[in-house]
Amino acid sequence: MNNPNIVIIGAGYGGIMTAVKLQKSLNVNEANITLVNKHSYHYQTTWLHENAAGTLHHDRTRMQINDLIDTSKINFVQDTVTKVQPDDKKVLLENGELSYDYLVVGLGFEAATFGIQGLKENAFTISSINSARLIRQHIEYNFAKYNNEADKKEERLNLVVGGAGFTGIEFVGELANRVPELCKEYDVPREKVRIINVEAAPTALPGFDPELVEYAMNSLEARGVEFKIGAMIKEVTEDKLIFEKDEKREEISTNTVVWAAGVQGNSLIVDAGFETNRGRIPVRGDLRAPNYDDVFVVGDCALIMNEETERPYPPTAQIAIQQAEHTAENLKKLVQGNNHLESFTPEIQGTVASLGHNDAIGVVFDDKKLFGWSASAMKKLIDNRYLLKLGGIGLVLKKGKLNFFK
Amino acid sequence: MNNPNIVIIGAGYGGIMTAVKLQKSLNVNEANITLVNKHSYHYQTTWLHENAAGTLHHDRTRMQINDLIDTSKINFVQDTVTKVQPDDKKVLLENGELSYDYLVVGLGFEAATFGIQGLKENAFTISSINSARLIRQHIEYNFAKYNNEADKKEERLNLVVGGAGFTGIEFVGELANRVPELCKEYDVPREKVRIINVEAAPTALPGFDPELVEYAMNSLEARGVEFKIGAMIKEVTEDKLIFEKDEKREEISTNTVVWAAGVQGNSLIVDAGFETNRGRIPVRGDLRAPNYDDVFVVGDCALIMNEETERPYPPTAQIAIQQAEHTAENLKKLVQGNNHLESFTPEIQGTVASLGHNDAIGVVFDDKKLFGWSASAMKKLIDNRYLLKLGGIGLVLKKGKLNFFK
Repeated sequence: MNNPNIVIIGAGYGGIMTAVKLQKSLNVNEANITLVNKHSYHYQTTWLHENAAGTLHHDRTRMQINDLIDTSKINFVQDTVTKVQPDDKKVLLENGELSYDYLVVGLGFEAATFGIQGLKENAFTISSINSARLIRQHIEYNFAKYNNEADKKEERLNLVVGGAGFTGIEFVGELANRVPELCKEYDVPREKVRIINVEAAPTALPGFDPELVEYAMNSLEARGVEFKIGAMIKEVTEDKLIFEKDEKREEISTNTVVWAAGVQGNSLIVDAGFETNRGRIPVRGDLRAPNYDDVFVVGDCALIMNEETERPYPPTAQIAIQQAEHTAENLKKLVQGNNHLESFTPEIQGTVASLGHNDAIGVVFDDKKLFGWSASAMKKLIDNRYLLKLGGIGLVLKKGKLNFFK
Repeated sequence: MNNPNIVIIGAGYGGIMTAVKLQKSLNVNEANITLVNKHSYHYQTTWLHENAAGTLHHDRTRMQINDLIDTSKINFVQDTVTKVQPDDKKVLLENGELSYDYLVVGLGFEAATFGIQGLKENAFTISSINSARLIRQHIEYNFAKYNNEADKKEERLNLVVGGAGFTGIEFVGELANRVPELCKEYDVPREKVRIINVEAAPTALPGFDPELVEYAMNSLEARGVEFKIGAMIKEVTEDKLIFEKDEKREEISTNTVVWAAGVQGNSLIVDAGFETNRGRIPVRGDLRAPNYDDVFVVGDCALIMNEETERPYPPTAQIAIQQAEHTAENLKKLVQGNNHLESFTPEIQGTVASLGHNDAIGVVFDDKKLFGWSASAMKKLIDNRYLLKLGGIGLVLKKGKLNFFK
């Protein structure tokens, strides 16, 4: 009997954690495991906003995959998936093709631009190491250019973030830290720089406790962030953003719009013919795709419902990691001939949004609210726990956030 | 009797050194001295190429003027000179106007573009802190952008330097150091990046000893610099440079052209009605402008002849500093009622061009050739001696180049 081929596509939180767990729980002679990823590295998507703001170097955020997996146990193929063919049990790559007995889909999200005019062409998204460091350099370039022009252009110094959800709020918090450094570096007066957060919903951080939202907005406003709440972005051009608020159109001169207001599942998944809902696969209890007993979905592409609220869980790192651990367990059973798979239920341990170096807000243990330093410390603990699971204490020491006091 | 007003315009090598020397040699009740400069800081023009390459931070290159002069002895006016009116003994500023009894012109050079099409619009010059850090950020931005485009653009990675004279050679040397760092930072393969030095003359470093030129070119070529010698730049556009060599036209895809091939005196000097020769004033032996006994010229705007070669001395920091010291002595005499001014003769102590961190070439003590580390160390000694003259040992320790071994 041949060993089954397990193919994992994508080395985000879900994919890499599935690989690391399988490497521990299966013997080399039980399965052939192949991990496919576009880059040679895994990165922490939840830290990218810091790389984009320039407050944390992207090498802290990424880890070489060869350092995380044992390549004598798991094959690593650096390539880009071009098509998934679940009926043929195949994955097509730019430079090859893989057959599988079991597939784990760990592909990440794509930005959803809701058809807003010019957004795709003129706005940045915080979606990868490449895009994050481009944002960092784009902002720096504009600061550097500012004093070289006799006719000073305010669009170079107006930084606009679309969306005051989790990522948008965390990003403006980092920008508020970064801007004074940029002003010093390029001799730009701080009062010339604006950080503007535009949100269409009637509140920032929709879904969060109002007391936490108020704390967050006060903290950020005190550090120079302007909020435009209930403001619909209508158009983005090369040098301005147009929004509508209270039925009035307004313009902001800017050549830096960072879109952090919408994500959707991966278009490869839709193209593959899976049942999808806004680009995500409404998985069964054991995280397998409807109609495909050999396809597991973890992370951004998996749609799972919160039965209490009757709404989907947001795709978070926390849930992706739990799904990966769960899927590794279920795959171990299948490989070992046990078809009784366990059903998955996320355990939401807490949600913490950082507001800058030493400030944050969050909810932990179901309903305990945290503010300020304690929330910030909790956020770092959560991040470090992930690194501990992924690569042990060595990885925590190398890449962890150990600066609890700043 | 009123104290005479001495006005110094420009705080480059010549202007700042005149001010510092006068501050030491004259008493407060002997003259009113005013130094005018566009920025609040003095900078070392000869280090700007390092700031532009990104191998040295610009804060190492500049010094706040208030830290160099004693403002209880010398007035400092931060403003831009808009016109010099020698017949009225006046200097007009953007925000004011100054009358003088004695004027010291220490204004810097301007880039000479020789009418090359598109050069002014599309090429950078290394002429100020602002322009140097813009070059640094422009290059970084293009490296950051490169991996974000499906259709990779080679013009982002082709760095072209116009001119293989002193500045051009020193700049490509720094780029050769910097490029490997940029490749690592932005995941760009080194072999995709080109550093190309285009020179119209039949040799690099025209005027230097051929043995030194050969050493320099070999050293730079070994570190990946390409030379196009005898190549006339014909046109620069947003994304390419066109040159003619051996009667053939060639193109290089590039959006980074740094022009280091020509300077001329300041246009304010021409507009003021002084006798000029290519924007520089052919000063008398005592460094005064023809027909104006109350106007001294130091640095880039002063044209002085080398009697041995019957050619003008190139405007170097070394000569500017000596002219400043000489002018301060002559001004002291005039203020104290002695009209017998001394004539100026430059003492050329040596010329050293750096080729990167620890390599250089040069000539010192008239005819001794230096190569490699010894030349590089000599260059740093020269730089440190300037700082010693300007601000004592404290300034050497703060801003000096003390890293003789790297």
